[in-house]
Amino acid sequence: MGLIVQKFGGSSVADADRIRNVARIITETYRRGHKVVVILSAQGDTTDDLITKAAEINPEASRREMDMLLATGEQVSCALCAMAIEAMGYPVISLTGWQSGMKTNSSFGNARIKRVVPERVLDELDRRSIVLVTGFQGVNKYGDITTLGRGGSDTSAVAMAAALQADLCQIFTDVDGIYTADPRIVKNARKLEEITFDEMLELATLGAQVLHNRSVELAKRYNVNLEVLSSFTGTPGTKVKEVVKPMMEKTYISGVAKDKDVARLAVIGLADEPGIAFRIFSLMAKEKINVDIILQSIGRHSTKDISFTVCKGDLEQAQKVLDENKSLLGFDHVDVSDNVAKVSVVGAGMVNNSGVAATMFEALYNAGININMISTSEIKISVLVNIEDADRATQVIHDRFFDEYGHRD
Amino acid sequence: MGLIVQKFGGSSVADADRIRNVARIITETYRRGHKVVVILSAQGDTTDDLITKAAEINPEASRREMDMLLATGEQVSCALCAMAIEAMGYPVISLTGWQSGMKTNSSFGNARIKRVVPERVLDELDRRSIVLVTGFQGVNKYGDITTLGRGGSDTSAVAMAAALQADLCQIFTDVDGIYTADPRIVKNARKLEEITFDEMLELATLGAQVLHNRSVELAKRYNVNLEVLSSFTGTPGTKVKEVVKPMMEKTYISGVAKDKDVARLAVIGLADEPGIAFRIFSLMAKEKINVDIILQSIGRHSTKDISFTVCKGDLEQAQKVLDENKSLLGFDHVDVSDNVAKVSVVGAGMVNNSGVAATMFEALYNAGININMISTSEIKISVLVNIEDADRATQVIHDRFFDEYGHRD
Repeated sequence: MGLIVQKFGGSSVADADRIRNVARIITETYRRGHKVVVILSAQGDTTDDLITKAAEINPEASRREMDMLLATGEQVSCALCAMAIEAMGYPVISLTGWQSGMKTNSSFGNARIKRVVPERVLDELDRRSIVLVTGFQGVNKYGDITTLGRGGSDTSAVAMAAALQADLCQIFTDVDGIYTADPRIVKNARKLEEITFDEMLELATLGAQVLHNRSVELAKRYNVNLEVLSSFTGTPGTKVKEVVKPMMEKTYISGVAKDKDVARLAVIGLADEPGIAFRIFSLMAKEKINVDIILQSIGRHSTKDISFTVCKGDLEQAQKVLDENKSLLGFDHVDVSDNVAKVSVVGAGMVNNSGVAATMFEALYNAGININMISTSEIKISVLVNIEDADRATQVIHDRFFDEYGHRD
Repeated sequence: MGLIVQKFGGSSVADADRIRNVARIITETYRRGHKVVVILSAQGDTTDDLITKAAEINPEASRREMDMLLATGEQVSCALCAMAIEAMGYPVISLTGWQSGMKTNSSFGNARIKRVVPERVLDELDRRSIVLVTGFQGVNKYGDITTLGRGGSDTSAVAMAAALQADLCQIFTDVDGIYTADPRIVKNARKLEEITFDEMLELATLGAQVLHNRSVELAKRYNVNLEVLSSFTGTPGTKVKEVVKPMMEKTYISGVAKDKDVARLAVIGLADEPGIAFRIFSLMAKEKINVDIILQSIGRHSTKDISFTVCKGDLEQAQKVLDENKSLLGFDHVDVSDNVAKVSVVGAGMVNNSGVAATMFEALYNAGININMISTSEIKISVLVNIEDADRATQVIHDRFFDEYGHRD
């Protein structure tokens, strides 16, 4: 018997049948004697529909009014889900962001949770009610409704779990856990029983968007026990925690991830003098363009080339910035490609094993896949490959690690 | 330059074009130098759609959760309208019921406004913002969202106007004012320039539902200057106030109204003894059945008959109550008819003129229309006629008063 926070995403509450399904999961947890707080997203496409409606009236609507508009989506799904639970005969109450004490700053559209003051939630739990809380939203100090940005419901759930010191925070999604690779690409991908916060963070960054990164960071900071599981299958999911149980001797990595949202720029023919890299990347920072992999190489005739990757959406802007500063930076030309993808292995175990990189590169070499760029961190090795090689690269790397070294489950 | 509260109903904000139209009316008022507070209903069929959604999940959903659900409708229309006003370059902010200090009791689904604490509204007006407020809703002392019931947005507008001591409260609807009769029935019906609160109350009760009765009562109590006008035509509407300007000599009535939602019960053959009427109507009161016209007549053989009208929806229950208490009441049989309609003339001027009733009855007699029952009050005379005569009765009464006596405009 403990306190469990459960979060259900938009696809889990998309229609009346799915809401009833969610109500069953919630009441089952309640019947087992737990106190249950549930964070809900807006139904299916509701948020997108509201955005379309707003765009029709004012494509440049203020974020304050957008939040006023969008916050209704979760309120609808919470009320409907409460009705479904009422119909099953259980005590239940739905609360909005402001009613449940979700205090945020005033960054409308992308607000940060400052603190959670869950008095009302605790009162209702004391009355043995199931408490449903609107995800994705809060209230600033002036009493304005704010939203946390896309994926914010995960963050709402973790913040509420932290504030209530919940025993477990279950994130229900349409996948049943974290896999060693995307099961749509790699057929023999396996579901992980456990994964560390850090690994989860790397995987989320790499496009395996099962959990919103902010929520994982928050869970790590407050040591919230997370579990990612499916609202459809009823099977155990993947636990995300600080330390996972001892691994088998030969297991180094937790997963292989592919990220197609990446583009490469190569600045060719820069003068080989100090400060060039600084100048390029401070220009990018000023435009709020996030740079991922950076590679510097010596060119011919005492020039050098600097290549780096950005997300696809920033490519045009990055190129424009470089062109506008061509005389300042003094380069020959810029070569760009959005025909690339990033494939990464992630694993907290690799930090003590330098063989991981070599094994990964060997697998790619054997498959005849060319590596454009390489980037490494303590728990991750990423390579940039041509986009047409990306799925095969993911597969051969996965095969190599999980067939030869065994896996962690 | 003053403070004007404007209220727009659901059909006035039904789509993007209509919202832009409403935004034009609002900003025009603002440009003339007024402070403007606007109360908005939910868009078109939104409330009905939400009710349908709820019924699919739980036909007996709690009123508390229904209110949580329904309150989103006005929040959406307020946010969208704010965006339209932003697009026109005016300062604007939308506020929910709780943000604007609309404090109610806890009668979910049919809450009463206890007080309005419009601090935030006043702050925003001081900043020269146009303030949009969600109609139909408030918050109880526990911080739960409540709704005021159907038509509650009119009440929201009047309550806000009273709290702000507004100079004028304009109720924009899809009709352009109060008419001497329903223009769909009586072709020569004329728009009134002014009407008293009491006349308006009688007309609303009679099915001329231009203004919600609660709102008129509230306006009368706090002496709020009301105006009913169209959001589509741009012409002056009808002012509703305590005292109207001096009438022409021969004008006694302000309008003729027809109400088809009426049914008649005749309890035949009651013993002619005291207390019978009391017993019948206390039984009706216990069942919360509102009784309208009552007529008692002496029958044959020292018995009497009591006839009365109820709204159609209560007919079955009223008949059941009578049948169940047949031995207690001691009557012969009950005769019922829902094939009737009530036609009334309303006018604050008739109180000093006994000729109004005679004129009305004469008009009906000349048209060969039979009167079943008669009821009079200080400012109203109602007759019950067969339903097939109702429209003609409305027309001939209207002709008689407005063609012979002239009209008030």
